[in-house]
Amino acid sequence: MAVLGVGVMGADHVARITSRISGARVSVVNDYVTEKAEQIASGIDGCRAVADPLDAIADPEVDAVLLATPGTTHEKQLLACLDHGKPVMCEKPLTTDVATSLEIVRREAELGRALIQVGFMRRFDEEYIQLKALLDGGELGQPLVMHCVHRNPSVPSYFDSSLIVKDSLVHEVDVTRFLFDEEIASVQIVKPSSNPAAPEGVIDPQIAILRTESGRHVDVELFVTTGVAYEVRTEVVGERGSAMIGLDVGLIRRSAPGTWGGQITPGFRERFGRAYDTEIQRWVDAVRTGSTTGDYTAGPTAWDGYAAAAVCAAGVESLETGLPVDVQLAARP
Amino acid sequence: MAVLGVGVMGADHVARITSRISGARVSVVNDYVTEKAEQIASGIDGCRAVADPLDAIADPEVDAVLLATPGTTHEKQLLACLDHGKPVMCEKPLTTDVATSLEIVRREAELGRALIQVGFMRRFDEEYIQLKALLDGGELGQPLVMHCVHRNPSVPSYFDSSLIVKDSLVHEVDVTRFLFDEEIASVQIVKPSSNPAAPEGVIDPQIAILRTESGRHVDVELFVTTGVAYEVRTEVVGERGSAMIGLDVGLIRRSAPGTWGGQITPGFRERFGRAYDTEIQRWVDAVRTGSTTGDYTAGPTAWDGYAAAAVCAAGVESLETGLPVDVQLAARP
Amino acid sequence: MAVLGVGVMGADHVARITSRISGARVSVVNDYVTEKAEQIASGIDGCRAVADPLDAIADPEVDAVLLATPGTTHEKQLLACLDHGKPVMCEKPLTTDVATSLEIVRREAELGRALIQVGFMRRFDEEYIQLKALLDGGELGQPLVMHCVHRNPSVPSYFDSSLIVKDSLVHEVDVTRFLFDEEIASVQIVKPSSNPAAPEGVIDPQIAILRTESGRHVDVELFVTTGVAYEVRTEVVGERGSAMIGLDVGLIRRSAPGTWGGQITPGFRERFGRAYDTEIQRWVDAVRTGSTTGDYTAGPTAWDGYAAAAVCAAGVESLETGLPVDVQLAARP
Amino acid sequence: MAVLGVGVMGADHVARITSRISGARVSVVNDYVTEKAEQIASGIDGCRAVADPLDAIADPEVDAVLLATPGTTHEKQLLACLDHGKPVMCEKPLTTDVATSLEIVRREAELGRALIQVGFMRRFDEEYIQLKALLDGGELGQPLVMHCVHRNPSVPSYFDSSLIVKDSLVHEVDVTRFLFDEEIASVQIVKPSSNPAAPEGVIDPQIAILRTESGRHVDVELFVTTGVAYEVRTEVVGERGSAMIGLDVGLIRRSAPGTWGGQITPGFRERFGRAYDTEIQRWVDAVRTGSTTGDYTAGPTAWDGYAAAAVCAAGVESLETGLPVDVQLAARP
Repeated sequence: MAVLGVGVMGADHVARITSRISGARVSVVNDYVTEKAEQIASGIDGCRAVADPLDAIADPEVDAVLLATPGTTHEKQLLACLDHGKPVMCEKPLTTDVATSLEIVRREAELGRALIQVGFMRRFDEEYIQLKALLDGGELGQPLVMHCVHRNPSVPSYFDSSLIVKDSLVHEVDVTRFLFDEEIASVQIVKPSSNPAAPEGVIDPQIAILRTESGRHVDVELFVTTGVAYEVRTEVVGERGSAMIGLDVGLIRRSAPGTWGGQITPGFRERFGRAYDTEIQRWVDAVRTGSTTGDYTAGPTAWDGYAAAAVCAAGVESLETGLPVDVQLAARP
Repeated sequence: MAVLGVGVMGADHVARITSRISGARVSVVNDYVTEKAEQIASGIDGCRAVADPLDAIADPEVDAVLLATPGTTHEKQLLACLDHGKPVMCEKPLTTDVATSLEIVRREAELGRALIQVGFMRRFDEEYIQLKALLDGGELGQPLVMHCVHRNPSVPSYFDSSLIVKDSLVHEVDVTRFLFDEEIASVQIVKPSSNPAAPEGVIDPQIAILRTESGRHVDVELFVTTGVAYEVRTEVVGERGSAMIGLDVGLIRRSAPGTWGGQITPGFRERFGRAYDTEIQRWVDAVRTGSTTGDYTAGPTAWDGYAAAAVCAAGVESLETGLPVDVQLAARP
Repeated sequence: MAVLGVGVMGADHVARITSRISGARVSVVNDYVTEKAEQIASGIDGCRAVADPLDAIADPEVDAVLLATPGTTHEKQLLACLDHGKPVMCEKPLTTDVATSLEIVRREAELGRALIQVGFMRRFDEEYIQLKALLDGGELGQPLVMHCVHRNPSVPSYFDSSLIVKDSLVHEVDVTRFLFDEEIASVQIVKPSSNPAAPEGVIDPQIAILRTESGRHVDVELFVTTGVAYEVRTEVVGERGSAMIGLDVGLIRRSAPGTWGGQITPGFRERFGRAYDTEIQRWVDAVRTGSTTGDYTAGPTAWDGYAAAAVCAAGVESLETGLPVDVQLAARP
Repeated sequence: MAVLGVGVMGADHVARITSRISGARVSVVNDYVTEKAEQIASGIDGCRAVADPLDAIADPEVDAVLLATPGTTHEKQLLACLDHGKPVMCEKPLTTDVATSLEIVRREAELGRALIQVGFMRRFDEEYIQLKALLDGGELGQPLVMHCVHRNPSVPSYFDSSLIVKDSLVHEVDVTRFLFDEEIASVQIVKPSSNPAAPEGVIDPQIAILRTESGRHVDVELFVTTGVAYEVRTEVVGERGSAMIGLDVGLIRRSAPGTWGGQITPGFRERFGRAYDTEIQRWVDAVRTGSTTGDYTAGPTAWDGYAAAAVCAAGVESLETGLPVDVQLAARP
């Protein structure tokens, strides 16, 4: 796999592919800052830096391409991927204007193969997946209204008013299309008096009002200089109840006959599934590095197993009598 | 890697290693039900079933062993792993009695290498990790008291009163030792009147009262026939505040000067890091299977990228005028 | 005090004045349904029904007037109150049109005495008071944006689209003016596709967008046929954080450096102040009716005091030994 | 009504009876600090201070007695109330030892009239009332276990280990008896290592373990030097679910099929009932003091009513067009 662009986002993706997911490896990296690409390549077995992104795409050792380059270069690179028939995962935006985006869509359609995936990652987030499932399940009836909040504590110095639309609102646009399965028909930006802490000339907060083709209403508070934290919230109001995610407490439903609340994790797999993944990943990592350290573990040891056994044995004894039982531990070898 | 025992837990681990984590593959599986082992092996590239667990451990192609066999077989298998110098991840219990557990600890100590890891997965759970960090950070002062709840909706028919101690309490024992960094000095089981829905003869709920060496108090409600869901809760009360996890709303602190609450996700990485992992894992999986389907994507398509661009372009226009702007979409190719 | 109009609202007020608050009594009631007024008057010591509301206002035994009559009669009755110099508490609306409302304001101003109070009760609600105090305290900086939700499970059959504005939105209008201490400069009603469960011809939900004189943005979801419950929510987003009330969990703040949460009740007075009020009110009621029943209590009895003392005495004994101590209770006389 | 003892608690009760509840007035106050009693009496119409509590009880103008004197004087004063046949509301404790408490119970029983109410105010708290109703409704099945937390930020300097039992635990004792409708059979106090911030010699925290006659288990964390706030929490675990109050978020249920949550306020009366009470109480107070200030209002004015009307009229206009409508306000007279 080739990763093009290894800035913050691309470097994250390289680390992800290399150490947290199964079935792929990074064989080529590219960045317009060549030192950066070389530094990252040198840290990965069997990976090299390539100077020209188009060479990386064309490379016969590359089965798929991850695009984390600046948006302005996407058009050319996507077309190259299509030409070579290579699957490509493209960080947003697809391209920087509507006409070229449409051109990409058409070229891919002519190929007859779906090669391009766009990086709207929220569709893979557990809370959005739960919300989508709840809507599709029909328990809330048809959705009528959606309220979104998108707050950043701060933004880079190059941010301006239109980037708030193109970089922040774009996620809510995709969320709307994902959750409601329909297109957006119109959009309006309302401009309240600005936050004094916003950079000179930047309109922030902004309120976006979307109307879908079927007439659903979506409002979005966009506020990127809150000084607080990253707050992304979505509330859908349906014919028979509402649901909200993004309050840091999971999905909260409010429905007839007048109750609010969430789901309790049903079982140990749902509750601790990720902990198991992490446990085994850490152990595998430890085993691989153990020959140099003599320690092939990354967690509870045999002693922890023994000590737990000793306490439980005392517990079983107390189960008979109901009285406190002292735990006798051997000296630790 | 060899996975011994491919019942519910072992099969989960095989799937985990094969499709969700990086850097390991399952080359050997074993189960006393040989058909099960063979069925699982046949689904994995380069994996075979081996009839005798000790052969699997001895196999030179096996670098590490994951033990998900019944507890009664652990002693023999762990000793074999030690003999062969192979790292082993052992699902709880270490062994089924205190004496053999201690023997294992001693044999490993003689080897001078840490080869055995025990499967107390909660230490890898994000909420427990946050709680541990909070305690170690000292903001709550020294912990004085801990309240735990361990509720299952139901248990298998073979469960009895002592298994509630050995199988449920054991996790809270490890949590206590993990969070407090000290051993448990005594344990008492209190028996309230039982739930009528508990199986004949099973004492449920039980209340366990632990006292650590330094005198800290831990109480644990063990209740395995609630009919509700899986509820695992831990509250630590320190000198200067308390913190609770397991209410399905993240870690909640209560501290001076009289506030309660949680942490807001600080940034997009913390908020959507797992979504990115899933996005890329799904995409990698899709790319690998795409040659047969013609679809190399697992999520938003080029059309989704185009539609979002069209809405944002209308948004940027409205940013000027403040008026609603219609979104013009081309026909979908 | 005279209560004019003893429908649902007025009858509530009569009960309130008669049995829950201090320092006033209802001496005159009036309703256009004279039987209703007479029935209510007959249940109250020293109260009589009066047929003409203007007579009630003029009555020299009446020190103040509570107006819970239909809005269409308010103008005449308010002017009568002003003429007689009587303080009047007027349920919303002040009058049914803007011109007469202004006329009332002017007539009162000419009198030079503030005689008219309008029934916007939210200003007396603890959550709104807390929110106002938080804003005035300046911790969140200047408020920039406010999101309101106003949901009813259902509405009476006479409700129409404009009543949603006049009867529901009016509360949010007052909340805006109360919290922000400024006037509203413009208002826009957005109409999403309607709830199929709304009555024929009624536009529901509606979204109201208010802009204050200084440019603050307020949006209000008005939805009166949700089938769920009564949901009134207000979130204020300020320069340095946000706060929300109406989620049935008290006031929740979200502020730097990235925490969310609420206030813990600081002391027993704040926690149980209302319980004390209720306790004493119930006891006073019981004492007044006790002569007929022989029971002058409305709560825990001497036996409850004795039993608690017996348990605590056993507790003090256990405090010495740490062992369980049996509680010995005498037979209940 | 006579109020004996006008320290913190008694003075609160005097204020309560005088200004927040209906149907009673304080005609006599008494305190062993006579200046205090006189000062309080002087602030209330028709109230005088009496030096001897027994004279106050005997006073023919006194219909009922509220006892907020030190516990050591209760026995004598309660007996006097019984002798005079006067209803008495006695702050806890009934008396300071078990034998005299029992004697009081017997004397009252001989009289054949229930004259004594004890001040366990939690029975009048909305959350406890909701919890009791939930248990009595049977939805959670029989209660099996209860966990209580009783935390104070700090305690007066005279507090000692046994006062934690007698003054703090006593409330949980009454809560247990109230919620479970049965007596407590045994009590055990467990002593963890103490909070360094607790006064020298005071055992704090303490853990109380109660067992009811039918075998239910109750544990109580008593911790009176937390430095945080006032935290009183109660969780009941029943056969078919659990419920918790005291987390500052109302009553939270956890029940089959695996959901957690609370009740949404069903209607405006439940949501704003107390706000209406406060609104009218404040208005009544304002009317009574208005003659000196010229202001007979305590809240929204006619101008507020006019401004709201003007905004709603603009809203109704916008309802037609969907466009923003400017609000035209007259100059404020």
